[in-house]
Amino acid sequence: MVTSDRIKNAQLQSKVMSADDAASLIKSGDTVGMSGFTGSGYPKALPQALAKQIDAAHAAGDPFKIGLWTGASTGPELDGALAKADAIKYRLPYNSDPIEREKINRGEMDYFDLHLSHVAPMVWEGFFGNLDVAVIEVTGVKEDGSLIPATSIGNNKTWIDRADKVILEVNTWHDERMEGMHDIYYGTALPPNRVPIPMIHASDRIGQTTLRCDPHKVVGIIETNLPDKNAPFPPLDDVSKTIAGHLMEFLKWEVKKGRLTNTLLPLQSGVGNVANAVLAGLRDSPFHDLLAYTEVIQDGMMDLIDDGKMLCASSTAFGMSDQAAIRFRENLDFYRDKIILRPQEISNHPEVIRRLGTISMNGMIEADIFGNINSTHVMGSRIMNGIGGSGDFTRNAYLSCFVSPSFAKKGDISTIVPHVSHADHITQDVQVIVTEQGLADLRGLPPKMRAETIIENCAHPDYRPLLVDYFERAKKNALGLHTPMLPSEALSWHQRFLETKTMRR
Amino acid sequence: MVTSDRIKNAQLQSKVMSADDAASLIKSGDTVGMSGFTGSGYPKALPQALAKQIDAAHAAGDPFKIGLWTGASTGPELDGALAKADAIKYRLPYNSDPIEREKINRGEMDYFDLHLSHVAPMVWEGFFGNLDVAVIEVTGVKEDGSLIPATSIGNNKTWIDRADKVILEVNTWHDERMEGMHDIYYGTALPPNRVPIPMIHASDRIGQTTLRCDPHKVVGIIETNLPDKNAPFPPLDDVSKTIAGHLMEFLKWEVKKGRLTNTLLPLQSGVGNVANAVLAGLRDSPFHDLLAYTEVIQDGMMDLIDDGKMLCASSTAFGMSDQAAIRFRENLDFYRDKIILRPQEISNHPEVIRRLGTISMNGMIEADIFGNINSTHVMGSRIMNGIGGSGDFTRNAYLSCFVSPSFAKKGDISTIVPHVSHADHITQDVQVIVTEQGLADLRGLPPKMRAETIIENCAHPDYRPLLVDYFERAKKNALGLHTPMLPSEALSWHQRFLETKTMRR
Ligand SMILES: CC(C)(COP(=O)(O)OP(=O)(O)OC[C@H]1O[C@@H](n2cnc3c(N)ncnc32)[C@H](O)[C@@H]1OP(=O)(O)O)[C@@H](O)C(=O)NCCC(=O)NCCS
Ligand SMILES: CC(C)(COP(=O)(O)OP(=O)(O)OC[C@H]1O[C@@H](n2cnc3c(N)ncnc32)[C@H](O)[C@@H]1OP(=O)(O)O)[C@@H](O)C(=O)NCCC(=O)NCCS
Repeated sequence: MVTSDRIKNAQLQSKVMSADDAASLIKSGDTVGMSGFTGSGYPKALPQALAKQIDAAHAAGDPFKIGLWTGASTGPELDGALAKADAIKYRLPYNSDPIEREKINRGEMDYFDLHLSHVAPMVWEGFFGNLDVAVIEVTGVKEDGSLIPATSIGNNKTWIDRADKVILEVNTWHDERMEGMHDIYYGTALPPNRVPIPMIHASDRIGQTTLRCDPHKVVGIIETNLPDKNAPFPPLDDVSKTIAGHLMEFLKWEVKKGRLTNTLLPLQSGVGNVANAVLAGLRDSPFHDLLAYTEVIQDGMMDLIDDGKMLCASSTAFGMSDQAAIRFRENLDFYRDKIILRPQEISNHPEVIRRLGTISMNGMIEADIFGNINSTHVMGSRIMNGIGGSGDFTRNAYLSCFVSPSFAKKGDISTIVPHVSHADHITQDVQVIVTEQGLADLRGLPPKMRAETIIENCAHPDYRPLLVDYFERAKKNALGLHTPMLPSEALSWHQRFLETKTMRR
Repeated sequence: MVTSDRIKNAQLQSKVMSADDAASLIKSGDTVGMSGFTGSGYPKALPQALAKQIDAAHAAGDPFKIGLWTGASTGPELDGALAKADAIKYRLPYNSDPIEREKINRGEMDYFDLHLSHVAPMVWEGFFGNLDVAVIEVTGVKEDGSLIPATSIGNNKTWIDRADKVILEVNTWHDERMEGMHDIYYGTALPPNRVPIPMIHASDRIGQTTLRCDPHKVVGIIETNLPDKNAPFPPLDDVSKTIAGHLMEFLKWEVKKGRLTNTLLPLQSGVGNVANAVLAGLRDSPFHDLLAYTEVIQDGMMDLIDDGKMLCASSTAFGMSDQAAIRFRENLDFYRDKIILRPQEISNHPEVIRRLGTISMNGMIEADIFGNINSTHVMGSRIMNGIGGSGDFTRNAYLSCFVSPSFAKKGDISTIVPHVSHADHITQDVQVIVTEQGLADLRGLPPKMRAETIIENCAHPDYRPLLVDYFERAKKNALGLHTPMLPSEALSWHQRFLETKTMRR
């Protein structure tokens, strides 16, 4: 087999094989740690070959399933293909694949949704059992067997270190000039041997540029030339732009009050369209010399770098549209020293986030009048994606902001509800809530004042009187008037939606 | 006025005055930062004098009120006296005083309950406005004007640094030999100037033994000789002992599995009786050379130190019974190098907690079948104490355990409910739940398996069939079957209790 010049280690060249042969090394019941974070840097050939083999096994009456661990979400060739083949028994830590989401919500697949910063440490701590195989997409293999990472790092370091066997996909679609953009920190340990993470600024490099890998563990290498597939961003709508505008006004106010400067603090921007709109809002702002310390480099961040507004963006993955991916490849030398990809145990580490003091902006499903946030479960039970890194950031941010339209499903759902149907972020972790209606600055406010501020500034006018009505009655009839709440009614809006398809009355 | 030899600085000796005179320096509308954490190290004379003056002001038609910030809870001479005088408009960050609790729950007082690790940084960030006066109890004043702390540190460093004026209570009840036990770290900063906290082991000393204080800011010094007042611990009951026993078995199992050693990892033990019982359980365990990294040194920890089981305990305060306080004073030279008191921004810092990897054991009000925890709000609305440091520890612990009897109010309340009426800790932050019924090890379990494990192992037999019944119907009828939940019923147990005074059917 002719191998590409991307595999420089002679011993490893001999491990090149077809995707089918590599897939056959995975057995039913195996726990497999795959690369991938957002639609970036995930293996593409092996999962599809494996899905085919599992389809065949199922047809032959063999109930073949695997456990699947990744960095976060991946692309359709991985999560989509394996979910379609009904191949996954257990999935962690994050998913946004629509087929898989359906299976999870039909109760056909087990999904363990956890803080992204917890994944690597808990795997090392032995809490989730053995990792049988790692399947990692890389840009190339160096003479010494070390690996040049691709467009995401995620948990790759941990999977390679912990797995019994390693399978690599060397994807020539990734530009070799990416070498040097990654920063892999090898200083983590189990307690009592943990030491401070020596990062002071979002732009610091504290590790090495390649992944270590014991060549003896590599059981197969697949050569591919396949693009990453990220979901495209729809054009910015007026609602998102209005939300971004409110947030820009607020940040300017903070500068005026001396609580921030015009260089702000490292930005963390969550997944979703509204978060991307906020990044767009920064383009026409007075803020400059920005840094990002975030999970994913979206199009909006690339724009800020292009504009010279952002000096450096640290993340664990790209989450670019196809157009931005092309722009990145065409101007890679420009971006090389402005983007750093790190393991997610570092990009999401509470120690680093609290030290840097991020300005965090995340999307949400709903907020209640007290400012509890539901990021994950529609009507309390149906999971959308997962908590991802939002809990790592919100509790440790300098300013934790949540952004969302005040309504969903054409207005049949109010994003501001009497009581969240599921809580991911508690009031203590939420300083600012923004909808297209306005911004609620909740710092220092006790519960009842939080409620007044959120109802007044964030709720949609159609729902505001209903919220006021509920809150007034709660203030009269609740057992305790600290956080007035009526168990008989708190979730009645969700129940009404389930029964009548609208929260309206 | 003859001053005690505790005030060694000549300039400050001249500031000695009566509690009444010092209290008159506080004006209506002032925000006052007082020392105090648990019933330890809080000012005792000034608050009572202030309460008297406020009583008089109220009688004269003057609506005198202050904002009150502390470390955490204090004693009856502070929170109790001021609450009784209706003197507090706004209180942060924690309270366990019964009079104040009543006022808060009657809606007569604003209370802002926040993560203890957030308090000092957010005050520095300017999020809560100006601090007018600091009132700090100390053991003594040194020649150079620096202060020897007393039995708690809490936020004292921040209050002294930030307040316009400082009033000291020099309390000769505190033993002077305490000097040297405290470790005040002055390396914190606002971002972008934060650096790693140089602590590697729970027993490390990283700061200085005294509090810095600009003598020009000191406007008054009161001399007192008054004991701390901590709530006594009731004798251990069988339920608590059984809970402790389950936890000990679990820890032994973890050692057997190689996930811990017999020296465990630094222990954090929450407030409350069950947590104290767990500490008692460690006395007869095979574990040794223990460390504590916690908020409060309770009697149970003193016992472990006495036994030679615990090498060193780090905390921000004592929370000892009167008997333990006497024991401490009588054997101070023995305890001197085995106990370290730090500012709560360090004792509760996520960076340090995650690095050390604590084993955290906290009490709770209720847990739901998925393992969400309510630590604060009875029936979702009536606050008990506050979240305190539980959120700082649970999300960053090596193992986060919650302990509680499976029932409250003689069995009319089930501690395990279909859905928490208020969420303080989300499923991702809870690895273990223990009641007298048994222990649920939730690591790696997706929601439905968590529910099965919790119902089976933790619920009281009287309520178990009701929980199974709810869960089975939820698995059939919920919108999503990832976290099956019925909005129409999720809070019905709480509603039933409100209507019928029992959750039983
Ligand atoms: C919460 C989250 C789904 C919002 O995403 P978004 O793209 O900003 O928000 P949108 O308003 O476009 O909503 C996305 C979908 O959720 C639906 N939705 C939003 N609010 C809803 C609500 N209250 N009830 C029901 N559905 C709702 C929208 O209708 C939309 O559905 P569609 O795709 O079928 O049209 C997303 O931010 C998320 O998954 N967050 C959790 C993880 C996270 O925060 N990661 C970043 C941390 S670093
Ligand atoms: C939750 C908390 C109140 C439990 O305290 P505890 O002493 O272990 O628990 P107990 O079982 O003795 O309960 C204390 C009281 O709450 C009541 N209670 C407990 N569960 C209840 C429930 N589900 N519904 C109503 N009341 C309940 C008890 O009846 C008891 O009331 P009483 O004082 O009137 O008898 C306490 O741990 C707390 O305040 N935690 C929050 C802060 C924290 O965790 N700090 C430590 C972090 S470092």
